[in-house]
Amino acid sequence: MLEYQAILEEIAHEIQPFLNEGNVASYIPELANVMPTHFAMSLMCVDGRSFHVGDYEKRFSIQSISKLFTLAMAMQRVDESLWERIGKEPSGSAFNSLIQLEYENGIPRNPFINAGALVVTDIILTHLKDAHATVLEFLRTLTQKDDINFDFHVAKSEAATGYRNQAMANFLKSFGNLEHEPSRVLNAYFHHCAIAMNTQELARAGLFLANQGIQPWLKEPVLTPRQAKRINALMLTCGTYDSVGDFAYRVGLPAKSGVGGGILATLPNHFTICVWSPRLNSKGNSYAGTKALELFTTKTKLSIF
Amino acid sequence: MLEYQAILEEIAHEIQPFLNEGNVASYIPELANVMPTHFAMSLMCVDGRSFHVGDYEKRFSIQSISKLFTLAMAMQRVDESLWERIGKEPSGSAFNSLIQLEYENGIPRNPFINAGALVVTDIILTHLKDAHATVLEFLRTLTQKDDINFDFHVAKSEAATGYRNQAMANFLKSFGNLEHEPSRVLNAYFHHCAIAMNTQELARAGLFLANQGIQPWLKEPVLTPRQAKRINALMLTCGTYDSVGDFAYRVGLPAKSGVGGGILATLPNHFTICVWSPRLNSKGNSYAGTKALELFTTKTKLSIF
Amino acid sequence: MLEYQAILEEIAHEIQPFLNEGNVASYIPELANVMPTHFAMSLMCVDGRSFHVGDYEKRFSIQSISKLFTLAMAMQRVDESLWERIGKEPSGSAFNSLIQLEYENGIPRNPFINAGALVVTDIILTHLKDAHATVLEFLRTLTQKDDINFDFHVAKSEAATGYRNQAMANFLKSFGNLEHEPSRVLNAYFHHCAIAMNTQELARAGLFLANQGIQPWLKEPVLTPRQAKRINALMLTCGTYDSVGDFAYRVGLPAKSGVGGGILATLPNHFTICVWSPRLNSKGNSYAGTKALELFTTKTKLSIF
Amino acid sequence: MLEYQAILEEIAHEIQPFLNEGNVASYIPELANVMPTHFAMSLMCVDGRSFHVGDYEKRFSIQSISKLFTLAMAMQRVDESLWERIGKEPSGSAFNSLIQLEYENGIPRNPFINAGALVVTDIILTHLKDAHATVLEFLRTLTQKDDINFDFHVAKSEAATGYRNQAMANFLKSFGNLEHEPSRVLNAYFHHCAIAMNTQELARAGLFLANQGIQPWLKEPVLTPRQAKRINALMLTCGTYDSVGDFAYRVGLPAKSGVGGGILATLPNHFTICVWSPRLNSKGNSYAGTKALELFTTKTKLSIF
Repeated sequence: MLEYQAILEEIAHEIQPFLNEGNVASYIPELANVMPTHFAMSLMCVDGRSFHVGDYEKRFSIQSISKLFTLAMAMQRVDESLWERIGKEPSGSAFNSLIQLEYENGIPRNPFINAGALVVTDIILTHLKDAHATVLEFLRTLTQKDDINFDFHVAKSEAATGYRNQAMANFLKSFGNLEHEPSRVLNAYFHHCAIAMNTQELARAGLFLANQGIQPWLKEPVLTPRQAKRINALMLTCGTYDSVGDFAYRVGLPAKSGVGGGILATLPNHFTICVWSPRLNSKGNSYAGTKALELFTTKTKLSIF
Repeated sequence: MLEYQAILEEIAHEIQPFLNEGNVASYIPELANVMPTHFAMSLMCVDGRSFHVGDYEKRFSIQSISKLFTLAMAMQRVDESLWERIGKEPSGSAFNSLIQLEYENGIPRNPFINAGALVVTDIILTHLKDAHATVLEFLRTLTQKDDINFDFHVAKSEAATGYRNQAMANFLKSFGNLEHEPSRVLNAYFHHCAIAMNTQELARAGLFLANQGIQPWLKEPVLTPRQAKRINALMLTCGTYDSVGDFAYRVGLPAKSGVGGGILATLPNHFTICVWSPRLNSKGNSYAGTKALELFTTKTKLSIF
Repeated sequence: MLEYQAILEEIAHEIQPFLNEGNVASYIPELANVMPTHFAMSLMCVDGRSFHVGDYEKRFSIQSISKLFTLAMAMQRVDESLWERIGKEPSGSAFNSLIQLEYENGIPRNPFINAGALVVTDIILTHLKDAHATVLEFLRTLTQKDDINFDFHVAKSEAATGYRNQAMANFLKSFGNLEHEPSRVLNAYFHHCAIAMNTQELARAGLFLANQGIQPWLKEPVLTPRQAKRINALMLTCGTYDSVGDFAYRVGLPAKSGVGGGILATLPNHFTICVWSPRLNSKGNSYAGTKALELFTTKTKLSIF
Repeated sequence: MLEYQAILEEIAHEIQPFLNEGNVASYIPELANVMPTHFAMSLMCVDGRSFHVGDYEKRFSIQSISKLFTLAMAMQRVDESLWERIGKEPSGSAFNSLIQLEYENGIPRNPFINAGALVVTDIILTHLKDAHATVLEFLRTLTQKDDINFDFHVAKSEAATGYRNQAMANFLKSFGNLEHEPSRVLNAYFHHCAIAMNTQELARAGLFLANQGIQPWLKEPVLTPRQAKRINALMLTCGTYDSVGDFAYRVGLPAKSGVGGGILATLPNHFTICVWSPRLNSKGNSYAGTKALELFTTKTKLSIF
């Protein structure tokens, strides 16, 4: 049996030199205020065991990791018709590129680039009275932590400076791929991204993805086994921006990263693993976080490949 | 000596079958309300003679033709440094494309595509207290017609539905190529585009472009001869969206078109000629208007080539 | 224990209506001569068991599936420095697109698009005296079938009509990313693609990919476990042209397809599975073959996710 | 009356500091052997007068200026149907880009980018038994100089290294937009580009472009007035690679440049002017040549605008 706790501690030690590589995201001013050398890693097994190392109780801005949960919420409500408005292919471009959106008439490549997540948010707004509250409620239920909340400073900071996302939402609307006004979709989107959680909570929240759609402590399945598998497939092909190929090559796990420095990965039927370190590589993924996951799959020889 | 009046009348006759080709712009709902078979043509010579045919007293939405006048206003105020924020090359793409803007880091290809005109508007806002009033004042002075005004229905209609331009302004801002808030730039821009003028007034307003920068009835030159020439060069290479090559090939005059169906062309040192017919070809230029100008340069053998 | 033979037969039955969907590849004239309703499926387990259904003894043109084996040969010889000349990311474009190659200065996105495979072939040519013979030898050794050979008609047909690949090889050379003359690289490439094998042989040839790099009946490992995993990762993110996302979503196995209608997939540590049906979907993957694999992973609930 | 000789000499003096700017084309090895500080300028008026300065008797590789003459030859033979295979729009991209060709299904943007000139050459090959001899014959007739010839070293040098053009011709063929084999089209094309002429001869050869299609010393018109005008229009919108806008803005004359450092410009109904200086700016146009033409139109106040 693998000594997970020992392995995590080994990684926390070996990762030290890498914590100074890369840069903290600066495009949301509020994100730049975080101490850049934080490091945390949490492993949550489908059998209930969990292991942690580093700052795993320190909350950070989950940013694009929220896209996993909003996608799950949308799949609960609309399933396959979802894919008439969003593709399932890797973008091959930066997460905030507008180029493909223009070439492909307003259909985002996948639900994990910003444009796709805006359409997912638009779908949620159609089905929910209070999208803000429901997303929060969903994460609180998944984790059984009632104090998970928005970081309103981050949400406000992004709303005030997020011209690129403003451009994207208006662009989607011009192609008729948003039902609601761009400002309303953006407001919900910025809030989802601004939720603050720690690695322990994220690993716990995402367990259904590694567990056939089931969150063990909840009565009802979150998703069907097939839906959970499909989100894993999307994570592998689209979850780490335009470095999915390199990430699959090095780490070999389905994963979703965020510019807050978090990465949530799964080994289906085994565990979720969440890592956090704020400095990002040139593709927008946590520099040390990616390295830590690579060390983990190398040491444990566990990956999907 | 050419019998301009007879030629214009001949064209007005020959153009009849073409008035049913193409489609009225529909992306601004208010523009779709115009009667689609209008036709007007006005010729204004540098020696003061003028000739007209058709609905030349009927005002229409000048739309992108306004970009000529806002560019002139910007050149009066900033001249060459202007070109650090805007290119001078044909775009090779649709007038509202965001693709090149992304590849070229927020520097619009030229001042006549929408993105470039938004930057021109931003520059004007920096130099003018009341951009709305000053643009109107400029056109009233150029034409000596005090009742030229905005069509507020068109401005409002575009503001309510112009998601593509909203996207573009926010995209420019995200690259740092707007000083003012996108909403303020768009408000000014939508108003400039919504000015209503007739062909007689437009031919008159643009005379300085064909006349070395001088409006004969004004004391001060509008532009230097060199500036006027340069706007003509820009009109030829960038004035008719992504059909500048075909337009130069068929018509052979510097020109600026608008989706309201107007086209203002010049033969430097000789005349301006303005044509209007609301139905557009697939590139966004007046279908019958382009044809009428082609007939004109064929009949008169006058062109810059 | 899963009844693989029964499942394959079930699929062979259920697939019948799908055998008329899609079109046989026509860009290589010789390929269009195949009977379009062939269907075969072979499963090869790491424990040595194998199962087959349909035309599994009928050889077909392996086309791009050869890229798996040439990549393995290159990795045996150069390993990580390989990635200085080829990327590891999905292309997001058609398999024969030149656009990204130009934007990215002659570095192909990955080794499975045509441009990338040409660079792999160029690398092999640098390390091998007789590339033709060695590739054939490699496949004969992997399968222990000595009569595997080129289909010279197909190779000749592609050489005579493959202007797009000619363009690509010359384009790569213009960027300095081929060491050898384009004609020599193309000659080798066209021959590799023109190898004829059946599903039984392909499933057998690729077993090392599912088996930590080891071909059980050979003394030496073909690749290290890490190298084998990495090829699996590349198959998943880049192996099925521009539908890798959809393929992962539906099938959930690393796979490499060819325009001859074959697809070779792996479930690491379990098996390889090869399917063949000549009619292709719009992305260039076997229509019925993709569907058959989807049925297989749905029925067995076996996938990497 | 303008003192053309004095003006040319003034320019030859003022241009000295600019002769060291830019770089000689190196992509054809043979072109790099020219002495980089050559400068020549020739003016040929429609009334028969001519003026020269500098190395106007020194021949150089006309390169893309040959595209003017092959286009004229094609227009003599096929006229408007030509435009079904080639566009008339500026490319907005580098002269040897393959990107638009792919997006636009093998229809080159215009006859002056390499891809367009290859199609023009293909058309000529369809109509002429011996394209090599006929192009040479055409230039000898236009100039009445019987010793104009190919520089076979340059032709051979380009054939040996022109992988980019090889790529382009094969790409065109793959779209079905070449009738002949790529190798044959390229052979003709490389020879046309490798013709050696001096500025005096080029200004003389192109006079029909400024003179309504008529070469005064020939019995038959070369082109109709309309055809000559249209080539001028194409020169203005497409003749100087991706700096047509800037060139029109600064110089204001229709022109065609070549990477040998020559530029042939026209002022319709007045003159042709040819300048040569081998060092190129970043867009592939002669650095000092462009500057000399700008000085000329500034000093004479003669331009089409």
